[in-house]
Parts: sequence; structure tokens; C-alpha cells
Amino acid sequence: MDLNADLGEGFGIWRLGDDEALLNLVTSANVACGFHGGDAPTMRRVCAGAARRGVAVGAQVGYRDLAGFGRRHIAYDFAELRDEVTYQLGALAAFCRLARTEVRYLKPHGALYHAASTQEAQAAALVSAVCDYDPELPVLCAPGSMLAQLAVGAGLRAVAEGFADRGYLPNGTLVPRGAPGALITDPEQVATRALRMATERTVVAVDGTVVPCPVESICLHGDTHHAVAAAELVRATLIDAGVPLAPFA
Amino acid sequence: MDLNADLGEGFGIWRLGDDEALLNLVTSANVACGFHGGDAPTMRRVCAGAARRGVAVGAQVGYRDLAGFGRRHIAYDFAELRDEVTYQLGALAAFCRLARTEVRYLKPHGALYHAASTQEAQAAALVSAVCDYDPELPVLCAPGSMLAQLAVGAGLRAVAEGFADRGYLPNGTLVPRGAPGALITDPEQVATRALRMATERTVVAVDGTVVPCPVESICLHGDTHHAVAAAELVRATLIDAGVPLAPFA
Amino acid sequence: MDLNADLGEGFGIWRLGDDEALLNLVTSANVACGFHGGDAPTMRRVCAGAARRGVAVGAQVGYRDLAGFGRRHIAYDFAELRDEVTYQLGALAAFCRLARTEVRYLKPHGALYHAASTQEAQAAALVSAVCDYDPELPVLCAPGSMLAQLAVGAGLRAVAEGFADRGYLPNGTLVPRGAPGALITDPEQVATRALRMATERTVVAVDGTVVPCPVESICLHGDTHHAVAAAELVRATLIDAGVPLAPFA
Amino acid sequence: MDLNADLGEGFGIWRLGDDEALLNLVTSANVACGFHGGDAPTMRRVCAGAARRGVAVGAQVGYRDLAGFGRRHIAYDFAELRDEVTYQLGALAAFCRLARTEVRYLKPHGALYHAASTQEAQAAALVSAVCDYDPELPVLCAPGSMLAQLAVGAGLRAVAEGFADRGYLPNGTLVPRGAPGALITDPEQVATRALRMATERTVVAVDGTVVPCPVESICLHGDTHHAVAAAELVRATLIDAGVPLAPFA
Repeated sequence: MDLNADLGEGFGIWRLGDDEALLNLVTSANVACGFHGGDAPTMRRVCAGAARRGVAVGAQVGYRDLAGFGRRHIAYDFAELRDEVTYQLGALAAFCRLARTEVRYLKPHGALYHAASTQEAQAAALVSAVCDYDPELPVLCAPGSMLAQLAVGAGLRAVAEGFADRGYLPNGTLVPRGAPGALITDPEQVATRALRMATERTVVAVDGTVVPCPVESICLHGDTHHAVAAAELVRATLIDAGVPLAPFA
Repeated sequence: MDLNADLGEGFGIWRLGDDEALLNLVTSANVACGFHGGDAPTMRRVCAGAARRGVAVGAQVGYRDLAGFGRRHIAYDFAELRDEVTYQLGALAAFCRLARTEVRYLKPHGALYHAASTQEAQAAALVSAVCDYDPELPVLCAPGSMLAQLAVGAGLRAVAEGFADRGYLPNGTLVPRGAPGALITDPEQVATRALRMATERTVVAVDGTVVPCPVESICLHGDTHHAVAAAELVRATLIDAGVPLAPFA
Repeated sequence: MDLNADLGEGFGIWRLGDDEALLNLVTSANVACGFHGGDAPTMRRVCAGAARRGVAVGAQVGYRDLAGFGRRHIAYDFAELRDEVTYQLGALAAFCRLARTEVRYLKPHGALYHAASTQEAQAAALVSAVCDYDPELPVLCAPGSMLAQLAVGAGLRAVAEGFADRGYLPNGTLVPRGAPGALITDPEQVATRALRMATERTVVAVDGTVVPCPVESICLHGDTHHAVAAAELVRATLIDAGVPLAPFA
Repeated sequence: MDLNADLGEGFGIWRLGDDEALLNLVTSANVACGFHGGDAPTMRRVCAGAARRGVAVGAQVGYRDLAGFGRRHIAYDFAELRDEVTYQLGALAAFCRLARTEVRYLKPHGALYHAASTQEAQAAALVSAVCDYDPELPVLCAPGSMLAQLAVGAGLRAVAEGFADRGYLPNGTLVPRGAPGALITDPEQVATRALRMATERTVVAVDGTVVPCPVESICLHGDTHHAVAAAELVRATLIDAGVPLAPFA
């Protein structure tokens, strides 16, 4: 099983999350590329830290929107989004090169993640950017999403991820934020769910039914001390259970 | 002899210069990388146009200052500047890759060009970025500048450029803007000076003395219709005189 | 009748449209406030030029999106949009104060104009910003739009504008861009339609029917030489016909 | 005596310092205006919080440099800096208006603070912006600085501030950062120095001599928990000693 998390999301003087702690927990680092968060010195540092630990570096690409942290949908047209994603891929690749590693996958961030899950134009822009830049690059995304479908259709590898700290509906999709059961906050419970995802590829939905969860990676969060503690417990629980942890890429 | 010019300096809806016209005149295109000017769709288009014509693509790196077009000095520290230059190199490399070419050299823009000519920390940041990223990459700069010296000291190739439309002092440096003789506006005169640079590696200084001008490239301007016309005459004059035009890189 | 146009939409080194020409034609200047275009020196210059000529200054507020020139919809939440509009209003007010005038109205730009025509949250954010800042400020918008309705409901004055160079459907709305008849390019025709709007408050729709066009202002464009020429003819035609031209505010 | 501190320096998702804690300690709030830090929702919140507590709001104006947090010198020309300062003043004034208060003073931030202390062009740009916008507005700055001199020369009120947590040289200027004695970290010592500044208008220099410190305001820091604790002790110490605390403006 792979463990991924968002890293390098500070900007300038501002910090966000605990990059060093997460680098010790994940097998894949989604590194912000400067459009919604992240800056050049941070990208250099995180890529170096990831390479040192054998953590795979992925391009966490987002909208050009520092003020909104990439969390507001922007109605990009296909070509502009494709090109801005290419730009971010290249920028991150430079820091990977310095760290004697490579960009190993792409994962969209925030509102782009959501848009690419359902909107054809934005999903296609991501797929086109990857196909043009390096068709060997997997795309990390929600299982069954528009992005996953278009990626596979274009000959790319789509890697599905699950969220151990989010509730699931019986149809295998996430409980919307704000609805009851959307967030799982108890670290023990989060770890138990992660273990089930890793060993059985299932998840217990909010109504108690056990549903398939065919994921190759589990997404951890590190934006609070609490989240880092939960992430630590997930990792320890998987290791104790003998689940091998390794980058999917 | 090589002919270089700044290209791709528009941003979003705003245009600057005539990229298509210049692509037909130059052998090396200094492509803006998005920090002082330039954006992803423009970079893609210019890199593709350059590759199609056999024009070498160089990274025209600048300060992060769209509002000032990179023309205001910014007191970057060494590491920040090095990393922001690396970022720009990588972003441009992605579009070169799409165009089946590569970044072939680096040239600093505006206030960074001037700072790197005299200030050790900023020149060293450029040199360090290139050494880390690709020590085969030449640096296009002013002859005798701090950047040229540090580049050579670090084992890089420093390529000197001349300005056929600028006046020179007897010591081989440019007449400062604003001083008498700083700008040569007559296209015939500009072409004559370019020819002398190309065939004799000399320039006639403001006091009439002939001084060495050991350049491997001549910088053309394209920000006005007038400038494009002068550039066309330079190119035609060199070709008529049998001077072979080719990228230095 | 009032004539309005977008002004001050350059940024840094980049120019857009002919501010000086338009200042001599309009009675109301929609001045860009720095988020989608415009910068501080431009705002100062345009406000001063408007005040000198008795042209009313309006705040042309937009999304924070220089790269997209405010033409891409951004899914702002209510409070963020309200506050960013307030910020722009205040910034422009400072330059009006220097020019011994005041912000006299608000007009949304680009994608925000369109969003505010149909989406309640974004229209309400504009109305809320104006109510909090100065409830005496009129809002310049499309007749019958969501923004017009909410503005009036909140006690604001909504001023409707028409487009002499755009085709109209029989229901009084614009022919969508791209559809046949969307754009009127013949200056004579544009001027004739402007005169009809000014004197009869009607417009001839694409199907030939004459429909009501109850506007207090006509929007001119100045982004091309052609557009400026058409705007000049509109102004001259209205003056020749004895239509008094004055700011609505 | 007045107590001032920098507030509202977060941006988007990123936070910096504890605005709520500081609002309860200071009498004057230097509110960031969006160029080096700060954004519209933060400005609205901080202005409202300040007005509620009777804390005076000042415009903490800075360079347009989010990535560098306004801490890198930028070689602005006079007119651009003047206009960008005017823009920031106006933006903040809008949020003050909403909070039924007004911008009561201006204080430059970071590298602009330092530049305005010694460089005539940048100091003059600040003075010119204030004179044009509102000549009743005091300027908060270092005693004896270029900015203080030019402000007074232009008929403005210059308010000198002291730093209780910084070492002083016998000539009354600050010990440069990095030199021994530059920073005072013991809260008790900081409070003692603040009390001396407030009651005797003197400070004990690094060599033990007592030198004049004719300040009307003491600058507190709030970027760390430690700094907030020191600021609390300063305030408590002054109140216990019967020093009246009130805005200088």
C-alpha cells in the first residue's frame, strides 16, 4: 500500500502543515508547485527530503490562485489549464533533477481535484498535459472519477486513492463535507479503516454496509498536529499488520 | 554569428513585441518564463515556433515582478534567487520537451541582467542554478561582466553579446541610457555596426575609436515596429555579406 | 444619455485600449481597479484625466485574476467576493480623492459581470459591498439582471446599459457570442442603433422586431482602433441629433 | 504612551501572528494592506476588531512582494511607489469606513521601512503619498530617520517609535541584527526597558550609557507565543506604573 499526503504548501514566510513529519510517514509526497501554494525554496527542500527517504515525488498541480489556495473553482478553458499544468510539472521536475529523482506522478489539488472528478474539459486538460509531457506518468485520483476514466482511455495509469478519515456512502463515494459522518476524527478508527482498505480493499459505509474500496494509495492529512498524530497511527498500524508500504509509482 | 532577442513577453491578454516576426529573424530566442513576463500558453507557442524554425530556445529568467516587468532591482538573497531561477528553467524545459527541443542557454532579464553584471551574490545565484541544473548550459551575458567571470570560474561557458543599436564607450562598455549617443536609431547605422561586430569583432565607440567587441551573439530588439524593421535590416545585411547565422548553443 | 467604457485596463508595462481617446468620448469611465487589470499609476492617471474632463469615475471591479483578465468565472464565496470588491472600491476612491472627485458608481467586469447577472451569491456580494460602503452608489449592469433586481431590492439605484454593437434577441437579451448576429461591426449601423437606444429606448432585434431597451447608458468599446472609430461615430451621431450627453451619476 | 504592533499579516489560508491577542494589547494597529501580506477579509476583520476596542488603525504599507513578505528591497521609482502606497491607503480606508473609523496614520513595513529611513526617493514617495491623500495623517517611523525629516519638512507629523526588545547603540540607533546585543529576549528586561522609554524617554545602550529615546510609541511584536507573552508583560508593567496608554493619533 502507498501512503500519500500534500506537502510543501507554505508560501514565502507562511507555513502550512509539518513537511518534515509527513516526509517520515508517507511513501508518496504530493508537492505543491507554486500556483495555489508552494514556492521555489520549499520545492527544493521537499524534493531533496523526499529523495533522501525514498519517497516518490508527485506534482500536486492547482489553479493559479494563491489567495484562494486553489480551493475555488476557476473556469479555465482546456488549453490554458493544460499549459498551466505543464508549467507546474516542469518547474517541479527541475527540483527533482537537483535531488537526483524525477516527478513520478500527478495529483490535482483542491478545486481542480473536484472539477477533474466530474468535468470533462478540466479532466481532459490534465490528461492532455500528462500525455504530452510524459505518458508514463500515473495520475493519482478518485476511483471512478472522470479523470480516472479519461486517463485510462488515453493510455495513462490511473491510481485510485482512499480516505481513511472520511465517511463513505454505500455507492463508494465520499459523504459530502458538512453531512453527518463526513469526517472521522478518532485516530484509532482512522487507523482501523486504513487497515481494512489496505488488506481487504473495502470500507464500512455510513450505513454499516461493507463496500469495495479498490485503492492503491491512502491519503493522509498533515495540516494539524491532530492530523499528523492520526497519520502516524495509520502508518504504525499498517506496519504492525505486516502491510508492505511502498510508492505506487 | 548568433542573433538573439527577447520573446514571449506578453502576459494573459496583454501582448508585447511581435513574436512571430522575431522568430523569423533570430537564431536564439530568449523566452520569458513567467516571472517578469510570459505565461504558459505563450511559452508553449513560442517554444513550438522556435523548434519548427531551428531557433535555439534560451531561458530568459527574471525577478518575480510582473508589475515592474523585472526592471526594478530586487535584493534577493542568494538561495531564493537560485531557486527561483531553477523554477523558471524547469518550467521552460517542459515546453521545450513538448516541442522536441531543449533549453539551450540562460540569459537574465532586465534588472537581473544588470545586477548579475556587477553584483557577486546575484551573479553567483545564476551560476549556481545553472551548475546544479545542467552545467552544459551556456550563459548569455555582457562581455567582462561579473556573471561572465563567475560562470567561467565555475566551468560554464559564458557567451558574450553585443548591442548594435547601443553606443559604446572607449573601454568597451555601453554608453549609459540617457547619455548622448546611448541609442542608435538609424537602421542603416545599426546594420553597419552589426556587420562590423560580426566580421571584425570591433565596434566604433562614441569618440570614434575602434574598440574590440568580442561577441558571439548580437541582441536584437522587437518591442516596436521600428525595432523589428531594424532587426530585419541587420539580418539581411549579415546574410548579404556572407556571414553565416547560427545559434551559438 | 450616458456613454460608458472600460478604461485603465493596462498593467505594468502592458497597455490595452486607448485610454486618452476614450476619455474624450465617454461621460462615464469604468476604471479597472488592479485585480483583473489596472495598476496604481494607471488609476491615478485615468482618474485625473476623467476629473479634468468632467467624466464620472466608476469602479470596474473584477476577480483577482490578472492571468485570465477576470474573464474566467471564479467560484468565490459571498464574503470573500464582498470584501475583495470593497478593497477595490477603496483603492479607486483614493485616486479619485487625489483628483478631487469621487467614485460615482460600480460596474462589475468580465466573468463577474456575467456571474452577477444570473447567480444570486455573487450578485448579492456586490450589492452588500456597495450597501456597506456607500448606499448612494449606483450599480451599472444589464437590464433585468439578477444584480439589477437585488440592487433595487436593497435600495440601491440600478442603472441599465445597452450595447449598440451587439445583437439582441426578441426577449431583450443579447445574442450569445458566437451565434449569428452577435456582433455588429459596421460603425454606421452601430451609431444608428445607439441613436435609437438614446431617442426611442428601443432596439431592432435579430428577427427584425423592435423591442424595448430601457437603458440609461450605452457601453462603448475601445480595445481596437476600429472600436474607437465606432465609438467616435456614436458620440458624433448622438450630438448631431441633439441628444444631451451626461453622466448618469 | 502608545503601543503599536503589526497585525493582519496573514494571506489567504496562511496565518501569521495572533491578531486577536495583539488587538487586546495595543493602542495602535499597523494593518497590512495586501501588498506584502494581508488580504481583504483579514483587513475587514482587523479593522472591525480595532474599532470595537478603540484601537487606532494605521496603514502598514509595503512593497508588492508577497513571496518576499516585503522584506527584500525593491528599487521602485518615486512615482510608482507613491502610487502603490496611495492604493494601499485607499484600500484600507474602505475597511475603516465599514468599521466606522478611519485610517489614522501610516507606517512602512519591512524593507520599505528601512529604505525610507535612509533613502531620499523612497522616503519622499511616502511623504508625497500622505500629503496628497491626507496631510493630517501622521507617519510612524524611526526617530531621526530620513522619513521623519522629510515628513516634518513637508508639514506632516512624524511620530517616533522605540523598540523595547532591541538593543541600542550609544548614538541612539538600533544595534544591527546579528550583532551582539541586537535582541533582548527576556520579557522582564523588555518590560523594564519599555517602562524607561515611557517614563524617562531614555534607553540603556549596549555600552551601559543612558541615551535619549524621544519616542511616542513602542513597537510590540506578536509573531510568536513568546513575543505575545512579552507584549503582555510590557502592557501590564506600564499600566501598573500608572502610564496612561492611548493612541498617539
